[in-house]
Amino acid sequence: MTEALRWTGDAIEYIDQRRLPHETHLVRAQTVDELESAIKSLAIRGAPALGVFGAYGVVLLRQRISDNEAFKAATERIRNARPTAVNLSWAVDRVLAAGDMLAEANSIHEEQRAIDRMIAQAALPLFSNGSRVLTHCNTGPIATAGGGTALGAIIAAAQAKKNLAVYASETRPLLQGARLTMYELGQAGVDATLIVDSAAAVTMQQKRIDLVIVGADRVARNGDTANKVGTYGLAVAAAHHGIPFYVAAPRSSFDFTLPNGAAIPIEERSGDEVRQVGGIAITDPQTATYNPAFDVTPARLVTGFITEYGILKPPYSESIPELATRPNVGALA
Amino acid sequence: MTEALRWTGDAIEYIDQRRLPHETHLVRAQTVDELESAIKSLAIRGAPALGVFGAYGVVLLRQRISDNEAFKAATERIRNARPTAVNLSWAVDRVLAAGDMLAEANSIHEEQRAIDRMIAQAALPLFSNGSRVLTHCNTGPIATAGGGTALGAIIAAAQAKKNLAVYASETRPLLQGARLTMYELGQAGVDATLIVDSAAAVTMQQKRIDLVIVGADRVARNGDTANKVGTYGLAVAAAHHGIPFYVAAPRSSFDFTLPNGAAIPIEERSGDEVRQVGGIAITDPQTATYNPAFDVTPARLVTGFITEYGILKPPYSESIPELATRPNVGALA
Repeated sequence: MTEALRWTGDAIEYIDQRRLPHETHLVRAQTVDELESAIKSLAIRGAPALGVFGAYGVVLLRQRISDNEAFKAATERIRNARPTAVNLSWAVDRVLAAGDMLAEANSIHEEQRAIDRMIAQAALPLFSNGSRVLTHCNTGPIATAGGGTALGAIIAAAQAKKNLAVYASETRPLLQGARLTMYELGQAGVDATLIVDSAAAVTMQQKRIDLVIVGADRVARNGDTANKVGTYGLAVAAAHHGIPFYVAAPRSSFDFTLPNGAAIPIEERSGDEVRQVGGIAITDPQTATYNPAFDVTPARLVTGFITEYGILKPPYSESIPELATRPNVGALA
Repeated sequence: MTEALRWTGDAIEYIDQRRLPHETHLVRAQTVDELESAIKSLAIRGAPALGVFGAYGVVLLRQRISDNEAFKAATERIRNARPTAVNLSWAVDRVLAAGDMLAEANSIHEEQRAIDRMIAQAALPLFSNGSRVLTHCNTGPIATAGGGTALGAIIAAAQAKKNLAVYASETRPLLQGARLTMYELGQAGVDATLIVDSAAAVTMQQKRIDLVIVGADRVARNGDTANKVGTYGLAVAAAHHGIPFYVAAPRSSFDFTLPNGAAIPIEERSGDEVRQVGGIAITDPQTATYNPAFDVTPARLVTGFITEYGILKPPYSESIPELATRPNVGALA
């Protein structure tokens, strides 16, 4: 399928992920308003894809805004468009610091493709023939502008003839599992079954899940992991069933400056996401809601982190800081 | 509000719960097809309400079917219309065994109202002023044709000036939490907040939930509890957070013949419930699904059972069989 986004020379062209799987609608973003709105509305989403989008966004803004103060203000709007995923600010900073901004953005995109392949390679030994795997939200090609992280690893393992059975939770409120993950698994020809989010625990028990793999929006230095709301409950249930729980994430999703998960900002989104499904009201429009987009899974519930540098194991207080010192993947690829 | 159902003399008139909260649509059931369809479609639902509905259903069938074999076959269809809730077969058997069937059905209905009041009374000491309570699915007045079990207890405590904050999970696939529980809490003037199901764990953590209370469709003799899918995950998450987890259920929801939860039949429902929300497709219509309507929470995760006879505590191997020996609540009320 078409990649999540591409640089056209004077715009970023991207798939509006809100309209998938019903239609593949391409949109061009050229202004800071359009960039910010694409991010905030989740038309473009997935922590690594946000990084690539933010990188090209800085290039675009530099082309169009000659005044340095105005340019700086515009890049700040992109950096802060969503607070939880760290890839966005990481990519913005990296492009701002580069001599040739476009070359740097292209590198970030090309590296993401390489990183995704390396994550899939590192994950392969975790799957046995016939493994039954549960995942949450969407971490496939469309979430990274490459091959995908957690879902990319699952698809790669399935294509390596591992004969997997994959269970995907629908991921309310915005149904990225039902809409995007099931679509990407179908495109890849992988045996996949959709469940409602609350069926995860009974699925682990009744379908004898062997492995849970999810992505991450930000990992703190101790291994506490912010990811799509519901991840924390999955990790607790996996631990209860003795099922390994892995997080697949590129180094760019690790925030080495944060001591632990309590310091990760958690985005709360509009209650309309809860009160509606696909624009249809399911409850009274005045209903009060609590709608955190993410939750934080404590490091002790994470069996390992699948990165482009291999699988990190506890103690994370050693393995994660060590990750910061590794050479850039550009040199490894 | 109107009660979930009433006997009119030659029909059962009931609220079609699928159309709540948007409209209160009253339907008359007179034939076995209509009775069975009302149950299977979840137009009428909630284990205790199913018991009352089934009781009047037997009266209705006896009025209309003079042939004993045909009558027996029709009552079997009602008894088996849904496999998990035990109240349905319990009520059918009780009316079949009675001399005056209508008097017995009326007793079952009247007893349910009394039982719900007694459950609420027994639960009251579990709430402190300002308690933060999480519940799942719908166990309010409309689910019992009385005052409700778990939600009835919550509403009664709120009305006893306990100043509660109540969190309700939406309960996919059929959204009984969003549609029915939020409606009933709103009608009762209780402070209530709606969350998606997968936000339960982060809500326990961030909103410092004090107490989880849910209902039950069938409790085995050892305390293993079948209830709406998602209950098991809530119980696991509550245990992880050290939050008391209570099940509110009348004695008629206990199946004293079943040694444990492995013997409880779990209904699997149509995948369209997962593939659609309110009739709107959220994924490809060919998508494979796993859609158990219930799950089984192991007894060790249940802090106590709130019944019309008071709160049962572990060891359940003693307190539950003892429940079977208590005098009928008709004598207590």
